[in-house]
Amino acid sequence: MAAYVLNTWYPVAWSRDVGRQLTCRRIVEKDVVLYRNSCGQVVAHLDMCPHRMLPLSLGRIRQMHSGEDALECSYHGMTFDGSGACIRIPGQRIVGSPAVQTFPTHENMGLVWIWMGEPALADPAQVFDLPQYHDENWSAVEGDALKIGCFYLNLADNLCDPAHVSFVHTSTLGSPAGEDVPVQFEPTSTGLVTWRWIVDAPAIPLFQKFGNFSGNVDRWHYYHYHAPSIAVIDFGSAATGTGAPEGNRSDCMQIYACHFMTPVDENTTIDHWLHVKNFQATDQINQQLSEQFRIAFAEDKVILEAIHANERRHQNPRPVRLAIDAAPMRMRKLVQSMMDSEALMQAESTNQQTGQRTPQPELAPA
Amino acid sequence: MAAYVLNTWYPVAWSRDVGRQLTCRRIVEKDVVLYRNSCGQVVAHLDMCPHRMLPLSLGRIRQMHSGEDALECSYHGMTFDGSGACIRIPGQRIVGSPAVQTFPTHENMGLVWIWMGEPALADPAQVFDLPQYHDENWSAVEGDALKIGCFYLNLADNLCDPAHVSFVHTSTLGSPAGEDVPVQFEPTSTGLVTWRWIVDAPAIPLFQKFGNFSGNVDRWHYYHYHAPSIAVIDFGSAATGTGAPEGNRSDCMQIYACHFMTPVDENTTIDHWLHVKNFQATDQINQQLSEQFRIAFAEDKVILEAIHANERRHQNPRPVRLAIDAAPMRMRKLVQSMMDSEALMQAESTNQQTGQRTPQPELAPA
Amino acid sequence: MAAYVLNTWYPVAWSRDVGRQLTCRRIVEKDVVLYRNSCGQVVAHLDMCPHRMLPLSLGRIRQMHSGEDALECSYHGMTFDGSGACIRIPGQRIVGSPAVQTFPTHENMGLVWIWMGEPALADPAQVFDLPQYHDENWSAVEGDALKIGCFYLNLADNLCDPAHVSFVHTSTLGSPAGEDVPVQFEPTSTGLVTWRWIVDAPAIPLFQKFGNFSGNVDRWHYYHYHAPSIAVIDFGSAATGTGAPEGNRSDCMQIYACHFMTPVDENTTIDHWLHVKNFQATDQINQQLSEQFRIAFAEDKVILEAIHANERRHQNPRPVRLAIDAAPMRMRKLVQSMMDSEALMQAESTNQQTGQRTPQPELAPA
Repeated sequence: MAAYVLNTWYPVAWSRDVGRQLTCRRIVEKDVVLYRNSCGQVVAHLDMCPHRMLPLSLGRIRQMHSGEDALECSYHGMTFDGSGACIRIPGQRIVGSPAVQTFPTHENMGLVWIWMGEPALADPAQVFDLPQYHDENWSAVEGDALKIGCFYLNLADNLCDPAHVSFVHTSTLGSPAGEDVPVQFEPTSTGLVTWRWIVDAPAIPLFQKFGNFSGNVDRWHYYHYHAPSIAVIDFGSAATGTGAPEGNRSDCMQIYACHFMTPVDENTTIDHWLHVKNFQATDQINQQLSEQFRIAFAEDKVILEAIHANERRHQNPRPVRLAIDAAPMRMRKLVQSMMDSEALMQAESTNQQTGQRTPQPELAPA
Repeated sequence: MAAYVLNTWYPVAWSRDVGRQLTCRRIVEKDVVLYRNSCGQVVAHLDMCPHRMLPLSLGRIRQMHSGEDALECSYHGMTFDGSGACIRIPGQRIVGSPAVQTFPTHENMGLVWIWMGEPALADPAQVFDLPQYHDENWSAVEGDALKIGCFYLNLADNLCDPAHVSFVHTSTLGSPAGEDVPVQFEPTSTGLVTWRWIVDAPAIPLFQKFGNFSGNVDRWHYYHYHAPSIAVIDFGSAATGTGAPEGNRSDCMQIYACHFMTPVDENTTIDHWLHVKNFQATDQINQQLSEQFRIAFAEDKVILEAIHANERRHQNPRPVRLAIDAAPMRMRKLVQSMMDSEALMQAESTNQQTGQRTPQPELAPA
Repeated sequence: MAAYVLNTWYPVAWSRDVGRQLTCRRIVEKDVVLYRNSCGQVVAHLDMCPHRMLPLSLGRIRQMHSGEDALECSYHGMTFDGSGACIRIPGQRIVGSPAVQTFPTHENMGLVWIWMGEPALADPAQVFDLPQYHDENWSAVEGDALKIGCFYLNLADNLCDPAHVSFVHTSTLGSPAGEDVPVQFEPTSTGLVTWRWIVDAPAIPLFQKFGNFSGNVDRWHYYHYHAPSIAVIDFGSAATGTGAPEGNRSDCMQIYACHFMTPVDENTTIDHWLHVKNFQATDQINQQLSEQFRIAFAEDKVILEAIHANERRHQNPRPVRLAIDAAPMRMRKLVQSMMDSEALMQAESTNQQTGQRTPQPELAPA
């Protein structure tokens, strides 16, 4: 089993996919059953009856006398309310407090977010938000739930790495003009940002298709990584000479490509992606834009799955580190420090219960 | 590798499927090759040539000069008679006593039964029998060899558990009227019996289809478990008020649903099922009845395979035990005690050969 | 991971399959990327970029300013010349000497041969050759790259074992007349040869189809094994009475069936096979001959894969050794001694660097 940050809001499903039917998702190596109750709220339980471990997603939603919904296991009819408490055991009275583990959820940006850690710490105000998503001058288009056969931090590597675009996405998001432009990065309050500018060069294929630039452009890629599982890529172009690098982006095309990653297990990540742009377009254009992203992210998928397969079989015999690796390595350290903090908090909590002193944790070497 | 009771008769194949062709079956994690010799008896060998381990089921049956059949390995022609003794090694004389392991078999109730343990203990008189199967006032119909992706004792759990019927088999064998009726059980000479009566309730869907009850019925389920791998479910209905619960079943519909389990390996069980009923019916009705069982047992399969998948991935984090678990837990203890006895017998046998004393075995705690 | 002889030339691909496209092959548990450079020579690298482990076979061939070819990784554009040296890292200067492991290759008999061991020891003059392949009085026909799901030494067992032909290849290469004829073997400078003569018997099915023998023939099988991965089977027939067993083969049909094995991993071998015969034939006849071999080798594949599956699951419970096993057992010892020598050489090389004495190795017991 891999290690995961737990005290964080993870995207777990598109809101559009969670309704009155029981739905199963896997996240941080746990199966979760989801449904939308009669009030429209998303209920999330561990997808495993505490009796015989049957997935509760094979059960059914039952209306209680109170009018509230409950979930009935399809093997022997044990029934759990939205808080996870058992409210019926057919043929006998309820002894003890049998319950199914239940996870806080919250919806934003078309997604259901779930909190897999300590429930008392779950604060819906901390769910990620991109203000432009809600701005009527911008337009948001939902993409897919792309399954990638790799660990989520390998996808995060890719999302702290603008340099790959010139080589991987030559037909959509990149062009040879960027090949030799170095990248820069710096930490932010929630993660880090990695970027580069490519000045006075032809527009990338996507903007050649959907923009109306007549000459060269100045273009930027800002990869905003929010630890542990969110990346928002701000990229855009403005006609060369209009001052975009100096801060004047009043006349530009700009897109936020959002990647909301679900860490499924060591070998699987779901990339819920969507895009938000600073112009309106017809449904047809929107779908054509999505199709360009679909092509690009499928290219990433091929690469990430091939790397994952090699990582599972081999130690890298002679690892070479390049300048562009600085940001992904920083990202990895940041996620490790979050997990270390959680382990420390867990140890303190345990020790408060047992009265022992907490030793100073040894942090992972830099 | 899982542990199995070995000194017992297991069903291994339908008699109808064993003929003059070589047939392979897997049981208690061993591959077995089967064929019917010219006298009509079923020969069963370990499906592995003692020379290079080629499955003997890739070989062919050869007639010996004596007229008896023998099995020739298809790699180098080593040939084994029905007792497993090697009777030919092409190109050389036979040195030592090379042999292939051979298992006693016996046929009854349309099935080939095999003894995987100590051959000297195999007594055909102990092969399971249901007298009604042979009674001309009853009618028996063979079902399928249903492959279920779980350990056989998980299927046995299900077959010591009448309560699940109300929730799992709502379209065939159960009805909501039974949901809250407790179950009872007691030990028998060969295993245990678990049962319940549901009195003065509508007939189950199966008897609504094939019976002619005009009003409510009293119905029973007796789950007769014969350790380790046989369950016979006696279920039936009589019109309410005719005294069925008190013992008068002179006018009733009664069916024995027989489950003859082959424990294949940790992850696989074959359920050879058939039914025997106290009335005659046309072939068409018989097949419709079988179809109802097919639907019901496919429902069990879904549940057992889902539980098996969870058991392989997780410890049950907070196991809840219910009143209905008493019978399955008793069944598990019984099978464990049979395996403990065999281990003790094996140890004594080894010690008699080496002259050591047998320590008192520590039995599994109750 | 299995152990392999490394300082040897292995066949890795048909020459016909290696061109200007990047091609991937797996050998001794390593992925290798192959391409033919603009001079027509085959370049072979480890198929894994030293940066992020992406398979280089997902990259592309680029022309350098010098006109030479280089391989560009498709993730970040790292570029390697034919020697494996890194000649470009986009966005930065090259620091250190990053390189991709590169393997010597040589072509002969329609195959690309590769040296997976110490490059300094690779001598193209040692690549296997069969003079008749180049002789215009003989005709060579290339076969397939047959994938067999077993370890290569199990296929080698089969290729040191003429006795199986009478039982496995009854429709093509064998006949019952050979069943009881013992085999003989002796060591050679590069391996061993195993053989037998079957005198005054009907021609085998293959020569009945393609020869014109009117009566019985004397026929031979010489299995020339060249350790570790080559077997050349010299088989033929001459009319009985013409003195073939005494050495007069002036009027005979003779075929060399060549097996060039690629040891892929513990579970996989590629058998590159071809045949060379002492007579000319039309393309149609050549293809019909190949089809006969295709049938025969598919029969071996079935057997070898079934044995392999059993070997992975079981210890042979009562191994029986036959007279015909002497040659395969000798072959296994020979390969083991080659690996022991390499381990010794490796230890000596390491000790020379560290100044330690080499202990006398304990060779595997005979």
